[in-house]
Amino acid sequence: MTMMMRNDPILDRRSIRRYTTQDVEEKDIRTLLEAGMAAPSAGNERPWHFVVVRDRRLMQGIMEVHPYAQMLKQSPVAVLICGDPTLEKYPGFWVQDCSAAVENMLIMAVQLNLGAVWLGIYPIEERVRGLRQLLGLPENVIPFALVPIGHPDEEKRPLDRYDDERVHRDGW
Amino acid sequence: MTMMMRNDPILDRRSIRRYTTQDVEEKDIRTLLEAGMAAPSAGNERPWHFVVVRDRRLMQGIMEVHPYAQMLKQSPVAVLICGDPTLEKYPGFWVQDCSAAVENMLIMAVQLNLGAVWLGIYPIEERVRGLRQLLGLPENVIPFALVPIGHPDEEKRPLDRYDDERVHRDGW
Repeated sequence: MTMMMRNDPILDRRSIRRYTTQDVEEKDIRTLLEAGMAAPSAGNERPWHFVVVRDRRLMQGIMEVHPYAQMLKQSPVAVLICGDPTLEKYPGFWVQDCSAAVENMLIMAVQLNLGAVWLGIYPIEERVRGLRQLLGLPENVIPFALVPIGHPDEEKRPLDRYDDERVHRDGW
Repeated sequence: MTMMMRNDPILDRRSIRRYTTQDVEEKDIRTLLEAGMAAPSAGNERPWHFVVVRDRRLMQGIMEVHPYAQMLKQSPVAVLICGDPTLEKYPGFWVQDCSAAVENMLIMAVQLNLGAVWLGIYPIEERVRGLRQLLGLPENVIPFALVPIGHPDEEKRPLDRYDDERVHRDGW
């Protein structure tokens, strides 16, 4: 993987885990949520919910149930993407739908000059249970992924992750 | 859902299923593949493969195993995203990783003024079996999603899919 600068929100996106003390404005949160909900979903079923977390005690609680969430000490806000399989028209696709929503939010964060990172929750049972309890989620709602967001306090150059060995033509 | 124009590749993206006869250049395919491989993945494991399909007989074969793939009659090219769980460092995340790669490709298609759509394959067993057989995929490689790509021959105005009822604050 070599370093390069493409000036493209998809190609330049990196996982940002250090943030300044500057707050994230509500209008940016709104744009991030719009991006998440603009994701495609099977049959346009949109089997998702978004929990915006700003409460510092909740942040602390999340750090206690998620082993890789220490950046929540710094992040002014985090968004929990949740899946609701009861909203599915085509069973089995909610994970893909929610993943597309998360990725949209990560790319939009780059466009807004914010830093963000995808913290996996589902399908790790103890994280799912911990987050559900902490946030009081209903039984049908599955905490899927957490996205801490802030103004970047680290500079990471874009990576070229392209690998020709992963590309095949008209069959294997 | 109301109509609006945001001039943003994430918010303006729509599923495009009609294409002109114009070919898609290889440099654009390359950029789409770079976008796919720029997706985040659990532990940066990148558990994916991409099969670029241009062969018309393969397109025909795919239409016979996938019930919603009739746009392949028109699309000059399609990319099959595959997962390889044997590449996982953190078992259980390959679906999320591959979904992020697909979503990156769909957004990059908008940026390139191309049209594309996400056709679900996994976890529908008959589609998985049919695609694996048709393309000669190894046992450990799971056909995950197919993305037909072409120059758009339909105009779809962006939708505002934002739904305030799906947003929660500091808990449910």
